Amino acid sequence: MKTIGLENIKINKGFWKIKQDMVNNVTLKSVYERFSETHRFSALKCEWKEGDPNLPHVFWDSDIAKWIESVGYILNFYKNDEMEEVADRAIADICKNMDEKGYFNSHFLVTGERFTVRNEHELYCAGHLMEAAVAYYKSTGKRNLLDAMCRYADYIETVFVKEQSAAFVTPGHPEIELALVKLYEVTGEKRYLELSKFFIDNHGANEKDKELYPGCRLLYNQDEKPLRERDTVDGHCVRALYLLSGAADIARYYNDKELFETAERCFNNVVNKRMYITGATGSTCHGESFTIDYDLPDRDAYAETCASISLAFFANRMLKLNVDSKYSDAVERVMYNGVLAGISMDGKSFFYENPLEIDVDFNEVHPCTDGGRRYPITQRKEVFDCSCCPPNVTRFIGGIGEYMYTYNDDTLFVHQYIDSKCDVEGTSVAQSTNYPSDGNTTIKIKSDKKQIALRIPGWCKSFEISKPYALKNGYAYIDISADDEISLSLDMPVKFISANKRVHTAAGKVAVMRGPVVYCLEGVDNGKDLSAFTVDTKAETEIVEGAFLVPDIIAKGYKEPENDDLYFEATDALSECELKFIPYYAYANRGESDMLVWVRRA
Amino acid sequence: MKTIGLENIKINKGFWKIKQDMVNNVTLKSVYERFSETHRFSALKCEWKEGDPNLPHVFWDSDIAKWIESVGYILNFYKNDEMEEVADRAIADICKNMDEKGYFNSHFLVTGERFTVRNEHELYCAGHLMEAAVAYYKSTGKRNLLDAMCRYADYIETVFVKEQSAAFVTPGHPEIELALVKLYEVTGEKRYLELSKFFIDNHGANEKDKELYPGCRLLYNQDEKPLRERDTVDGHCVRALYLLSGAADIARYYNDKELFETAERCFNNVVNKRMYITGATGSTCHGESFTIDYDLPDRDAYAETCASISLAFFANRMLKLNVDSKYSDAVERVMYNGVLAGISMDGKSFFYENPLEIDVDFNEVHPCTDGGRRYPITQRKEVFDCSCCPPNVTRFIGGIGEYMYTYNDDTLFVHQYIDSKCDVEGTSVAQSTNYPSDGNTTIKIKSDKKQIALRIPGWCKSFEISKPYALKNGYAYIDISADDEISLSLDMPVKFISANKRVHTAAGKVAVMRGPVVYCLEGVDNGKDLSAFTVDTKAETEIVEGAFLVPDIIAKGYKEPENDDLYFEATDALSECELKFIPYYAYANRGESDMLVWVRRA
Repeated sequence: MKTIGLENIKINKGFWKIKQDMVNNVTLKSVYERFSETHRFSALKCEWKEGDPNLPHVFWDSDIAKWIESVGYILNFYKNDEMEEVADRAIADICKNMDEKGYFNSHFLVTGERFTVRNEHELYCAGHLMEAAVAYYKSTGKRNLLDAMCRYADYIETVFVKEQSAAFVTPGHPEIELALVKLYEVTGEKRYLELSKFFIDNHGANEKDKELYPGCRLLYNQDEKPLRERDTVDGHCVRALYLLSGAADIARYYNDKELFETAERCFNNVVNKRMYITGATGSTCHGESFTIDYDLPDRDAYAETCASISLAFFANRMLKLNVDSKYSDAVERVMYNGVLAGISMDGKSFFYENPLEIDVDFNEVHPCTDGGRRYPITQRKEVFDCSCCPPNVTRFIGGIGEYMYTYNDDTLFVHQYIDSKCDVEGTSVAQSTNYPSDGNTTIKIKSDKKQIALRIPGWCKSFEISKPYALKNGYAYIDISADDEISLSLDMPVKFISANKRVHTAAGKVAVMRGPVVYCLEGVDNGKDLSAFTVDTKAETEIVEGAFLVPDIIAKGYKEPENDDLYFEATDALSECELKFIPYYAYANRGESDMLVWVRRA
Repeated sequence: MKTIGLENIKINKGFWKIKQDMVNNVTLKSVYERFSETHRFSALKCEWKEGDPNLPHVFWDSDIAKWIESVGYILNFYKNDEMEEVADRAIADICKNMDEKGYFNSHFLVTGERFTVRNEHELYCAGHLMEAAVAYYKSTGKRNLLDAMCRYADYIETVFVKEQSAAFVTPGHPEIELALVKLYEVTGEKRYLELSKFFIDNHGANEKDKELYPGCRLLYNQDEKPLRERDTVDGHCVRALYLLSGAADIARYYNDKELFETAERCFNNVVNKRMYITGATGSTCHGESFTIDYDLPDRDAYAETCASISLAFFANRMLKLNVDSKYSDAVERVMYNGVLAGISMDGKSFFYENPLEIDVDFNEVHPCTDGGRRYPITQRKEVFDCSCCPPNVTRFIGGIGEYMYTYNDDTLFVHQYIDSKCDVEGTSVAQSTNYPSDGNTTIKIKSDKKQIALRIPGWCKSFEISKPYALKNGYAYIDISADDEISLSLDMPVKFISANKRVHTAAGKVAVMRGPVVYCLEGVDNGKDLSAFTVDTKAETEIVEGAFLVPDIIAKGYKEPENDDLYFEATDALSECELKFIPYYAYANRGESDMLVWVRRA
């Protein structure tokens, strides 16, 4: 099974074109400026001296790297000389300051240590630089960063495998594992794949690392037990899902059934028991972490933007091992909800955490006692001290084509519906669609493949295809001629979704969805005390034009009676009202406001 | 307005007789034994030497004091030589080790400091010892502790008022304020009342204290602003409510309208906006504190047993200033719910915190990450490191008579219905009742009063009285003859109670009450996932014999459908079921179990 690279896919119009335009026109520059102001770009010059307050943070390189990777993706589709020039300069700094052995980290090059503390993100930064190098090489043909990163990978192999001189074996924050696979894919150097496998196999199985970092941090560090023995996904969400992404790659390249089964168990655990309806994960800010099955609190969800992205990474890699719509459905859930909530509609600001409920009045329970509770911020910010999410969003949007197609000798698989044109060795495929504003897609295909397989999303219970099909694991398999056209019509009504009864915070509540898009109530539309509303799931809903790319939804609701008493005898004096639902990804674009995904059911 | 002292009231049978028997037969001894094991009693000998690990804690004396006070109350009604002897020995130790100036604190007498740090509970302990002295003197006639405490009060007046040599003015934890009033009441020494007023007036108005303890602790310490300027009750609940109890006393004795109005505003703020339906307060464990209006989370409620008790103290004192059933209703709410939940049915173990929901499976979200959340313990304990609640419960139960009657020249006011006999200067009154198992009470009164005023509880919307009455501020005023009998019949149906819509955690939920008793669901009766149930508020309920003093309630309910999916389209496939509600005070008496007060309404 192969992926059609995003470089072969041109998005024409619609939802993702608007988002990619935004990244090209606004976001790349905005993130660049914030990263410049915060000394991240100048750090690459490695000129820090004792006394200078702006010692580069150990993970700053990863921010730059994801930004370069984003530029790399965007340059496939846009001319953007300004950002390309910035990227070139940054790359030149990296290449220039890489040491003679091939090591680069803008913090440790000026402080002097090297591979002594696993949690200091050296391998994580190295991995992101490798991903950047691959992306930038593929779109620009410039290979200076790629060459540098090959040297770096060679050096890492030397100190971790050959000499074993590094103080630890498995990195604190996985990333190098999946990055080395990309380096292998672009260079064909099998030793990078071997090195990735080395890290994968050592997670949780390396006694030296466990001695160095015992106790509770084991879980956080993905080292509690050998990866292959896991049944649940625990600890830091992004760490866990990056690691599993790498594991899925290794399972595929080594045809490693045991590792696939591990990844499959873990995937099922996440999507069936530990994932928010938005595709986000992370039930607690403490350790930015998974907690236990069905523990999915809304107001204090962590639901990091990067965690959503990392689930898409993982799911997309599983899809190459096993064609099943559960993976591509998870990608879609993330695409339209968990990730996009992380960026403002104007493309300039970001959420790190993406709760499913905001209750402004009760966020600050008291300036002094603070209630011991902690809720995510309610307005997006342009940059964070730990600013991993912004460039992760830009590379996700820039790289969205990556999720659209896979193929084997016989079949072209269509996973995501985006108005686009794609040309790749012997196959040309074009999609015309307004998805996800509606569910109709026309696909024109010229190909030597025998069949096309179209994902029928899990949310869709009623659909039509203009040609005969056979349904298997969520895909409609259709025999095609060399030059064919297929119409797919996915019925996309408003749906009220319940959660498993073990999700106690969602008991008696429903989330509104239409197609893949999760909706929410905002205070700015509906007033205060959103918990006082119920939504009538039996009444007709209205799909109306909205301000946020897809339609808004008007539903019939009821509001609790006005009563000044603290406690009073229950009455039925509910008042009928209209509830306006907007796409969840669009919340907090009109000032600070309450927000609610899970609404009580009338 | 005067109170009929509990020493004049003999409880005959029923609910509170059972509780007082339990305290006399079981609890006093159990608490004594736990306090002995934990070195609290031996600490009174003041023999600690450097190197001994059991340095008395600064507030241990208050634990002993409340225990002695409890023994004092119980000795009004029971012969209990064993406990009296223990109390006598403890009192002898205190009197013997009090220093020549009249100072006593088992911690500071061995460490040497004195009145240098306001938060070290010296005045708090002194206050509790004064309350103990008064109680013990009144029932036993033994005045050695009383005399000692008068010396102590004199010494406090010297160092705080005359010499002003103490390092602070207002205590960290109020208590001395209301204790000095009791000392005044029993001795007639006006200077103790003056000293109480001195402390009341200095809270929040003393610049020296504010400098010593600036920042957030001001609120915790009841020092943020002068008491008379307050509109809300903030900070540490017990501190706030003890202080307000003292303020109500001072308002009464000094006919201080401004102070009464302050107390009235604060009382209204608590009961109308910051009180759990159980009468408990404390929305957060952080600072054991009030937070903001309508912030009343259930699972992580602090709802300290002592805070419930302190609301009864405050309300009962307000009642002497202003006959209004809102005060006595608050006392009743506390009596049957917030306090009694704090003690096991066998009288041996205690809750410090009294949440309104327990969700056992989700209390420990992960052994390592812990989710950053903290929930109260789910099983009562016999003693705590900070063991203020156990002897506070015993003195509350022992002193329950205190809440029954007040009188003025014309009228005897009946605030609480308890099967009992009472004789006091010219008045003899007897209540026959099964309250709160039912609402029928027969009152026989021989008195020179012109009227009797019977509280009509706020929960009661339908009642009958055998004689003509006029209703005013929640009291039915009835003209009586010198030897009269009145039947009161309060209709006591099962009620479903809603909370104000600003209480977001209770949205769409109801609490079951019958009379003053709040009910709850327990997992042991109803199974797992209590949030999956709704209760049908329109269906008939059944009042059945229960295991916990008052009847249980059977209601019709519905349960969410079984569905293994994490998210699925909402269906109406609810299954009908029977829900068993037990009194809230009886939860956690049958092993660890989920518990829920606010149940979703069908």
